[in-house]
Amino acid sequence: MKTVAIAGTGLIGASFGLALRKAGFNGAIIGVSSDRAIAEAVAAGAVDRGAPLAEAAAQADLIFLSQTIGRILDTVRHLDQLVKPGALVTDAGSTKCEIVDAAMQNIARCQFLGGHPMAGKEKRGASAASADLFQGQTWALTPVEAADMETPAAIEFRDWLKRIGARVLALDCDEHDRIVSLTSHLPQLASTALAATLAERLREGQASVAGSGLMDMTRLALSSYDIWRDILATNSDHIDRALARYIQELEHIRENLRTRQLQEEFSRGAGFAEGVRRRP
Amino acid sequence: MKTVAIAGTGLIGASFGLALRKAGFNGAIIGVSSDRAIAEAVAAGAVDRGAPLAEAAAQADLIFLSQTIGRILDTVRHLDQLVKPGALVTDAGSTKCEIVDAAMQNIARCQFLGGHPMAGKEKRGASAASADLFQGQTWALTPVEAADMETPAAIEFRDWLKRIGARVLALDCDEHDRIVSLTSHLPQLASTALAATLAERLREGQASVAGSGLMDMTRLALSSYDIWRDILATNSDHIDRALARYIQELEHIRENLRTRQLQEEFSRGAGFAEGVRRRP
Repeated sequence: MKTVAIAGTGLIGASFGLALRKAGFNGAIIGVSSDRAIAEAVAAGAVDRGAPLAEAAAQADLIFLSQTIGRILDTVRHLDQLVKPGALVTDAGSTKCEIVDAAMQNIARCQFLGGHPMAGKEKRGASAASADLFQGQTWALTPVEAADMETPAAIEFRDWLKRIGARVLALDCDEHDRIVSLTSHLPQLASTALAATLAERLREGQASVAGSGLMDMTRLALSSYDIWRDILATNSDHIDRALARYIQELEHIRENLRTRQLQEEFSRGAGFAEGVRRRP
Repeated sequence: MKTVAIAGTGLIGASFGLALRKAGFNGAIIGVSSDRAIAEAVAAGAVDRGAPLAEAAAQADLIFLSQTIGRILDTVRHLDQLVKPGALVTDAGSTKCEIVDAAMQNIARCQFLGGHPMAGKEKRGASAASADLFQGQTWALTPVEAADMETPAAIEFRDWLKRIGARVLALDCDEHDRIVSLTSHLPQLASTALAATLAERLREGQASVAGSGLMDMTRLALSSYDIWRDILATNSDHIDRALARYIQELEHIRENLRTRQLQEEFSRGAGFAEGVRRRP
């Protein structure tokens, strides 16, 4: 591939640009975003220049959509007339089935392959971007059919993902959305619900009577609804089921506060927590 | 005070000994624990020597019970015949009303003043102890009457707490137990329930499809039931109410996954999470 277009040059998009450069990509990297965001991404060295979507898409061999989910859905619906045949369109949206469905319905002149890099930071924007953001992290791809992973454009893209240090994992989009409803969306809502509960029940200063665990458990609650609105709306069925199961578990714990039964819950929970810390 | 007895020379007890020494306490510090724990506490410089409870209590002006809640309850029930009149017995149990009640019923020959230092570490034992563990941290005291804070022994103890850098906060034991059911016990159970839910719903390796938030939200789940059994059993009414309110909040979120209503929950949660991070 000679030219890459990155639509949305925030933390993920700009980090992808930096990572490609560090891995030896010598082609052009064109950013598609607001003037301010492009200026920040150019200053960070993540893109060479900005251009309107139509101009960037017409030249790009790889089009990487790293916008919010709502903007990705919108872009996907208007992209088909703008792309080069043979190009690959991929994305970084954190829910996949709605995006994949929209792409199947709207992109016909080139290939679409959904993606979700598992990487993030507390800070946003190109100025926080890092060439190593994806190093050692899982990068999920959601082919509709297994053959989607084996086209020339997909093979070349996967090769670049390997070079930037990401671990590619192919998943059905529904399985992806089910997994992240548990590993990402449920933890977010558990944190937000906890902080909202405490906000209501504690008076000024009483939160100083707390251990360090309170800080861990409320960090995700700092997240903004602006990011989560689209995620919750595009994965609500899986999230509903995850919440239902979580509530059931909490009810079980509530009924057994004075029984030995909780030893099992603590043991199962500790086993899981140790497992996620052991992974290479 | 000339002699301090520390019953239970784990992380908290040994840190208290180190903190007293660093703050200039020149009297004797006697540990009451197993031979192994005493050897570790002596090696850390936290106590001068070990002794049986009867021998240590007969000499001590301050008796600090930093055992598990179950052991504190047991010690409190057997301590009265052993103490010096004029001594102060205090403790570090993380729930207070059951301990205070047991002390009121059993300790008559000297004063008891319940306490709960808000400090901890992931590691346990005297070898992890630190003279600065309580620096800047809240140390709750739970007087039965306001006058309990103003006896000569209590004034001297509070003065030492100030010297080791702790911020003393007087609370009714029931208010203390209500607050920690929210700030400490609910976060623990939210984390354990989350990890137990995920353990059941995810297959090997699927947890790699996750953001960094999963690590925050499952850290407390690493805690052992051995520590939590007593806490849950001695504060189950408040914890039951905290869990009920949390579950209600989660149900509300579940019903509003696709509505703007969640903006309010995110905003309230973020406000609380920012507030606990702003406190001096």
